[in-house]
Amino acid sequence: MNAAHHYTLTISCPDRAGIIAAVSGFIAQQGGFIVEASYHTEQEAQRFFMRQEILADSLPFDAHEFCRRFAQLSDDFEMTWQLSDSARKKRLVILVSKQDHCLNDLLYRWRSGELLVDIPCVISNHEDLRSFVEWHGIPFIHVDMTDKTAAFAKIGALFEQHQGDTLVLARFMQIMPPDLCQRYAGRIINIHHSFLPSFVGAKPYHQAYLRGVKLIGATCHYVTGELDAGPIIEQDTVRVDHGDTVDDLVRYGRDIEKTVLARGLRYHVEDRVLICGNKTIVFR
Amino acid sequence: MNAAHHYTLTISCPDRAGIIAAVSGFIAQQGGFIVEASYHTEQEAQRFFMRQEILADSLPFDAHEFCRRFAQLSDDFEMTWQLSDSARKKRLVILVSKQDHCLNDLLYRWRSGELLVDIPCVISNHEDLRSFVEWHGIPFIHVDMTDKTAAFAKIGALFEQHQGDTLVLARFMQIMPPDLCQRYAGRIINIHHSFLPSFVGAKPYHQAYLRGVKLIGATCHYVTGELDAGPIIEQDTVRVDHGDTVDDLVRYGRDIEKTVLARGLRYHVEDRVLICGNKTIVFR
Amino acid sequence: MNAAHHYTLTISCPDRAGIIAAVSGFIAQQGGFIVEASYHTEQEAQRFFMRQEILADSLPFDAHEFCRRFAQLSDDFEMTWQLSDSARKKRLVILVSKQDHCLNDLLYRWRSGELLVDIPCVISNHEDLRSFVEWHGIPFIHVDMTDKTAAFAKIGALFEQHQGDTLVLARFMQIMPPDLCQRYAGRIINIHHSFLPSFVGAKPYHQAYLRGVKLIGATCHYVTGELDAGPIIEQDTVRVDHGDTVDDLVRYGRDIEKTVLARGLRYHVEDRVLICGNKTIVFR
Amino acid sequence: MNAAHHYTLTISCPDRAGIIAAVSGFIAQQGGFIVEASYHTEQEAQRFFMRQEILADSLPFDAHEFCRRFAQLSDDFEMTWQLSDSARKKRLVILVSKQDHCLNDLLYRWRSGELLVDIPCVISNHEDLRSFVEWHGIPFIHVDMTDKTAAFAKIGALFEQHQGDTLVLARFMQIMPPDLCQRYAGRIINIHHSFLPSFVGAKPYHQAYLRGVKLIGATCHYVTGELDAGPIIEQDTVRVDHGDTVDDLVRYGRDIEKTVLARGLRYHVEDRVLICGNKTIVFR
Repeated sequence: MNAAHHYTLTISCPDRAGIIAAVSGFIAQQGGFIVEASYHTEQEAQRFFMRQEILADSLPFDAHEFCRRFAQLSDDFEMTWQLSDSARKKRLVILVSKQDHCLNDLLYRWRSGELLVDIPCVISNHEDLRSFVEWHGIPFIHVDMTDKTAAFAKIGALFEQHQGDTLVLARFMQIMPPDLCQRYAGRIINIHHSFLPSFVGAKPYHQAYLRGVKLIGATCHYVTGELDAGPIIEQDTVRVDHGDTVDDLVRYGRDIEKTVLARGLRYHVEDRVLICGNKTIVFR
Repeated sequence: MNAAHHYTLTISCPDRAGIIAAVSGFIAQQGGFIVEASYHTEQEAQRFFMRQEILADSLPFDAHEFCRRFAQLSDDFEMTWQLSDSARKKRLVILVSKQDHCLNDLLYRWRSGELLVDIPCVISNHEDLRSFVEWHGIPFIHVDMTDKTAAFAKIGALFEQHQGDTLVLARFMQIMPPDLCQRYAGRIINIHHSFLPSFVGAKPYHQAYLRGVKLIGATCHYVTGELDAGPIIEQDTVRVDHGDTVDDLVRYGRDIEKTVLARGLRYHVEDRVLICGNKTIVFR
Repeated sequence: MNAAHHYTLTISCPDRAGIIAAVSGFIAQQGGFIVEASYHTEQEAQRFFMRQEILADSLPFDAHEFCRRFAQLSDDFEMTWQLSDSARKKRLVILVSKQDHCLNDLLYRWRSGELLVDIPCVISNHEDLRSFVEWHGIPFIHVDMTDKTAAFAKIGALFEQHQGDTLVLARFMQIMPPDLCQRYAGRIINIHHSFLPSFVGAKPYHQAYLRGVKLIGATCHYVTGELDAGPIIEQDTVRVDHGDTVDDLVRYGRDIEKTVLARGLRYHVEDRVLICGNKTIVFR
Repeated sequence: MNAAHHYTLTISCPDRAGIIAAVSGFIAQQGGFIVEASYHTEQEAQRFFMRQEILADSLPFDAHEFCRRFAQLSDDFEMTWQLSDSARKKRLVILVSKQDHCLNDLLYRWRSGELLVDIPCVISNHEDLRSFVEWHGIPFIHVDMTDKTAAFAKIGALFEQHQGDTLVLARFMQIMPPDLCQRYAGRIINIHHSFLPSFVGAKPYHQAYLRGVKLIGATCHYVTGELDAGPIIEQDTVRVDHGDTVDDLVRYGRDIEKTVLARGLRYHVEDRVLICGNKTIVFR
């Protein structure tokens, strides 16, 4: 992420000639200095996507005024758009079960300053990770899952109360209910421990072992109402062989899961991911 | 592959103590010099697998006599086993359609001496590749697929007539009938243009594009009666992104397919692949 | 590469605000439809780089007129720039020795229509590959290297005579003289069989074997007067282990060399590579 | 690592026929059950290397008695050998500076039970990581580096006093003195933040950035008297591009460093690494 104070403008609109000229012309008129710019046309959908980082100090006004002035242009092009201010860190609420490799990885990236977010709380259905989370000075909240409806209602309430931007399922091992998926579309990120669409659902490493695949993988994706079928943000694979047991696959898998979640989350936090139907555009 | 004249002994038998000692003791008694040795126990199946390369010149007799003397030991341990002689090249019959990237790759490896096999003929349901194959001095045989039953009967007959050891489907794009799959179990090798078990069947790159995966792959596997579900020999993946069209995926895919088929075929030709149920042990 | 008739505009100039707006504004004024756009600022050099693909049919005039109109703008911003027309294929002259894996790969990509170039001739210091090249209908020219000065003078003359755009050293195994390097700066592409800057010069696989590295690689780079030290376009690596002999490394290496050269060459041919000092910007 | 109590026998000796038969015959005579067996001949050195895991419960005596009985055979074959008992965990002393990504990774693998070792202490030349290390219940020892000779004498003494088996330089950023390198040959493991032999010494990511390489890497190796030139255990690379700053390379690099050190260390701890001159045999 750019270290200087900057705004990130992300836009999606019907494709036509002149969009780049209009947007970059508008920014230039205000004296704006663009430090990173990416464009993409999604052919099937006939939609255009763009992302631009603009130095905050190059503009004579603040983000609010930028948005006010940009409104006319955005209407003309029927844009769906958003301006993020790098001075306002995104707020991640992390859900975790007992498997803590992803949590350990994310908290390390956070405390080392690599992942520039606020983490108002970590929520878990087990008490195991309280000490580790609290050592970081982050509140740890236990939610009993006996009554799942009540539990997810509480999770939704906690997310609101802590003003969360993004809900991260860091190996939470519970299926999110449809109403949360819908309410927070594009804001809930999961790490699935297989190379989707292979091995949906439970025990993917066991499934992979039985099928005798020669690589295993992990997938970071947005959560939708359909299990493990939401827009994919990032994936990766690692080689295994006949000598590897299910336990070995699980061990290799942990390293891939950590990396894939960290990368996908970073793209999301830096507003590099735009959703188009069930696919993502990732401006790396 | 070892350049010196050698025998490759591959064994599978119920697991118990003393197998390695018995086999290596037997070889040592004959004065045999082992240049490569690999072992594996398949836990679920409780079966033991081994592969050994023995220098031919270190033995005072030939392959035939080795087999005669080894018979007693192999009976004691209930072994399924085989001895290959590096002096006798395996005979590959290649089936191809119009897509020729795998064929071009295999024939290059063959003519450069990297792939140590004989290729008695290439069979195709199209005439397009005749000139290229014949430039190599390899007979090209066209088989009309209008009557599929007759066509596959002819393919089976050609394979027998040319004394083929292995039938390679180098993007043949036709589904092998069950009787051929059964008759040549463990001897028909296919390259499928996806990372199985994802995207079985037709148009896998199109399927991958629609799902929005971030890597695509290819799978080299033995052909069985169930489509794209046989024992996997080798797989690999390559990164793609939102900017890649279906045509781009096809293009990236060709490179992965070539490499994965070449690697899988090499393992097979060097007797490095042992089948256990629907999985493979690959002694690389 | 975009299938439709298009122009590719590549620009490098001192960095400042308003460049994107000026260029995209200019294109929009002419009615130009941009199908791909990429930007990059090289911080140390304080230079800005951009590449844009514009649909030819969206402009009311031809490439010549575009250049005439663009001249004023380019002067204002002190641009170094170039407009390529997809209707005019680049002309590659290929130099090769006896090792033919890269040549085989390039000619396959050319004849299958994947690599959209013209190949007016292949030049070699050996006769071995004549039959293979001529089967493709491409002239094969033998140049005797006994007198190196005369030989390279002849190579330069052949390149001019065949109106070559790019000279590809597809494992040519001869060091280019400084005058050719200088005259065709940014137009001579080499594939070196190591992961540079490791193992410069002769026998890199042997060097790698002796050092006991766990991966080997290949590097596609522009040729400059300093051996194996020019701007790197593309690299890749592959895993090896203690069981691999030098011959095995050479074999693995061939696959990496082919892929890396093909990728680097494709980027170059599509005007995706811009040079900045001794580094490249590659707009993939 | 095999979960059952087992012994790991590693052997190196001059190559000749009959070694496998002699060793496996000896083990079989004692009733020993081999669960994993690997062999390799280093051609140049004409030396044979082997590693075998034997179930402890399958033997009628303990490790001490095994060694006593094996002595005769090992003398006959001029073996250098060693028997490790899985019941006795190796003791790692970790040296660290301020960069803590590798430390965080190793301690996580230790506390999650993935890395089966004892960590008697962590030594650092800075106080920064005390709280984190002590949270794990591991003693943290600060060593002042003002007087380097005294400091390294103290480090050596601490290593002895804590009965360390292996000294891990987890980004220690200090050059080990020759006497320690010699005294603990094959027992000091370093992670270097480049793909050696490229970019030896200080600031490798900066060097990589200036050279414009398209991949960066990390190397886990045994420390010898010559800087960054000891036997390589494990390496890996990751793709970067023109858009990545030195800070980005450092960030990508951290992930590679962690993974490569963890893998290399695991191989070492499981007695999978045998040294032959300046190279390693790694029986994975």
